[in-house]
Amino acid sequence: MIKFDYLHLVLYSSSMTKKSKPSNRDIVIRIATGLFLEKGYPMTSMDEIVAASKVSKTNIYYHFKSKEELLSAIVTQMIDRYEQVIAEIAGQSQLAVAERLRRFASLLADQGPDSLGGCPFLTLYVQTNRESRFVREEISHFFHNQIATIERLLHEGIARGEFSSELPVSQIAVMIVSMIEGGLFLQHTQQDETLLPRVLHALAFLLK
Amino acid sequence: MIKFDYLHLVLYSSSMTKKSKPSNRDIVIRIATGLFLEKGYPMTSMDEIVAASKVSKTNIYYHFKSKEELLSAIVTQMIDRYEQVIAEIAGQSQLAVAERLRRFASLLADQGPDSLGGCPFLTLYVQTNRESRFVREEISHFFHNQIATIERLLHEGIARGEFSSELPVSQIAVMIVSMIEGGLFLQHTQQDETLLPRVLHALAFLLK
Repeated sequence: MIKFDYLHLVLYSSSMTKKSKPSNRDIVIRIATGLFLEKGYPMTSMDEIVAASKVSKTNIYYHFKSKEELLSAIVTQMIDRYEQVIAEIAGQSQLAVAERLRRFASLLADQGPDSLGGCPFLTLYVQTNRESRFVREEISHFFHNQIATIERLLHEGIARGEFSSELPVSQIAVMIVSMIEGGLFLQHTQQDETLLPRVLHALAFLLK
Repeated sequence: MIKFDYLHLVLYSSSMTKKSKPSNRDIVIRIATGLFLEKGYPMTSMDEIVAASKVSKTNIYYHFKSKEELLSAIVTQMIDRYEQVIAEIAGQSQLAVAERLRRFASLLADQGPDSLGGCPFLTLYVQTNRESRFVREEISHFFHNQIATIERLLHEGIARGEFSSELPVSQIAVMIVSMIEGGLFLQHTQQDETLLPRVLHALAFLLK
């Protein structure tokens, strides 16, 4: 298992250096991320973010012109950080591909705030509508890249003799990302943290 | 493929007899379902439902005390109808289990309104928060039953010699429901209707 502490550090730490105080912008992003994921994006007002962050309304609006712009900044930052960790996991060629896939899934499972839909990206996508085009497109692109990364890993696994060369790679790649996203969602509905691990166990059984 | 017309009839028709006019209650449920799924539950006001349904506010509030109560009625009705069709598909013992699983997945894929999150149940779950406890519990229970139905089907498939008796049934069952839900979600993000069929193809390959 990837240590949560490490992930938390990479995913939720701000860009500040260790000694300096977090900037107001960092504080607002951290507080708003929690509210958007745990309470819901449309159900959170800028006034609540002001109250919870203790940053003045004027200062918040100096950094973000609207709630939508704040959401965009959050999604862009979340994606940057996840993509960095995903690239790191995918590149660890000293590890078996199966192990890298497991870590990839754990990464998406080990999340900070308790998102309403299990996965933070799924939650923010479903909580926005066609009016939040930029956010939905960014999340769409993030999943597109995830599928491509899994495809590359599966090809590597076949080349290394870990998987059968008959594997329909592109189909298995979308299946893996689907089962992780669906598993995170179902796990949330069932309030059962063993659900995603069971899904991954079934996958490992079938890939043998 | 199950015909969409048939599904549409079962899932979206009201309980009215053929000749009678739809009741105001039926009209409000139909219009609100579309708005909640396509625009979002928190983003839809009762005033918009009044305007779109052309049913008076007084009449709507006569049937539903609040937007929350309207949502509960919608979710209860959707679940009743899906469970009816799922039971029908699962019980068709003249069909191979693999074929029934395929129809089960098609049922969830062939949906009426274009839900924000791909699947209507996932969309309504993620669009509500802890304050909508009844709705979230109903959806949770619906998925619990789906997993149990798939488990029974897999046991039947093993007994009929369709699948290996070594299959870890309960794990494969959660995996199948996860990949359908995740596949519907990803398909929506990628705006690619071939995505879920590819996921199901990968599953069929692995179950062989």
